[in-house]
Amino acid sequence: MTDLILHEYAPSGNCYKIRLTAAHLGTRLDRRGYDILKGETRTEAFLRDVNANGRIPVLQIGDTFLPESNAACVWLAHGSPLIPEDRFDHADMLRWMFWEQYNHEPNVATLRFWRAMIGEANLTDAQRAQIPARTAAAEAALTLMDDHLARADWFAGTRFTLADIALYAYTHVAGEGGFDLARWPAVSAWLARVAAQPGHIAITA
Amino acid sequence: MTDLILHEYAPSGNCYKIRLTAAHLGTRLDRRGYDILKGETRTEAFLRDVNANGRIPVLQIGDTFLPESNAACVWLAHGSPLIPEDRFDHADMLRWMFWEQYNHEPNVATLRFWRAMIGEANLTDAQRAQIPARTAAAEAALTLMDDHLARADWFAGTRFTLADIALYAYTHVAGEGGFDLARWPAVSAWLARVAAQPGHIAITA
Repeated sequence: MTDLILHEYAPSGNCYKIRLTAAHLGTRLDRRGYDILKGETRTEAFLRDVNANGRIPVLQIGDTFLPESNAACVWLAHGSPLIPEDRFDHADMLRWMFWEQYNHEPNVATLRFWRAMIGEANLTDAQRAQIPARTAAAEAALTLMDDHLARADWFAGTRFTLADIALYAYTHVAGEGGFDLARWPAVSAWLARVAAQPGHIAITA
Repeated sequence: MTDLILHEYAPSGNCYKIRLTAAHLGTRLDRRGYDILKGETRTEAFLRDVNANGRIPVLQIGDTFLPESNAACVWLAHGSPLIPEDRFDHADMLRWMFWEQYNHEPNVATLRFWRAMIGEANLTDAQRAQIPARTAAAEAALTLMDDHLARADWFAGTRFTLADIALYAYTHVAGEGGFDLARWPAVSAWLARVAAQPGHIAITA
């Protein structure tokens, strides 16, 4: 198989998604780390050679580069049970993955990044001004998940898919962003189900 | 075929994507309109019956509901040439569609919505404070597209795909958000290529 290199910042949930997908598939990934706090993904070399968008993760597949965490998960899981074959379930899996990037990540992940990585004392005034709206949006996202999970074990179809992996990544560390996950019991139960799947690895693995 | 109903706000680029995809496929969609400026997607009935996330578009497929514009396009285009079969090109199409929702839509579309739909005089202070950062991010997104399109006719693989439809939707009306598209000549040329595809329809159709 072609050599796979994950260009990453290890604590990022977006990077963890890809490692978790690979772990479930038994696929080996080499890892190359960048410190985003030091701007290592905004250097001229990174922008030219890895991702013109200046972001990790990027999955390098031989000589080609695939940015966007959820797209990398789809590439890795091609033809596996992590992607439903059924037409509706397949689209519904993607629906949750698009929702994750639009409604969940910008709120749940950003607050974790600001509080646990940058530190609240070091935020700019513009960032601080966004905390209330992002907190409300993050709580709404967790509540929407909780409502779904009160009626279903998994997000798409009737089994564990990439939608669960994509949503697990930042949800299970939402506490680092200041959220008490005990408020969302169906989410908490689902987090335990995901972590109990054979092949599961921790974000620190 | 199952009856398809698009729950939409017609001027929304996210809703247009789905109509444009259906037009290319020759698929008939019934349309049900909601005025988002009047909060018609936040009513109790909409949240209960159509989308708990309170957003359009939603593609109704018989008795099931599929939110998220790009997921609806994937469902519609299942098995068609609008989705590459090649494993990398398929993931790369999704890469651009995830990028569109994360880096492009929140900036290019939001500024259009604020300026052309709400009106700059009616913005809240919090919205007004975000204009500089969203403008810079929108310009960066258009520049990233321009750099790609200087080297390739289409976003994924070597032909017109859902990635082009997803990115066309808000890019071609970016002028309504205050952007002069003449600054991005490769984008402008690509917009003309998309509009020249057989089956193309306008956002006002």
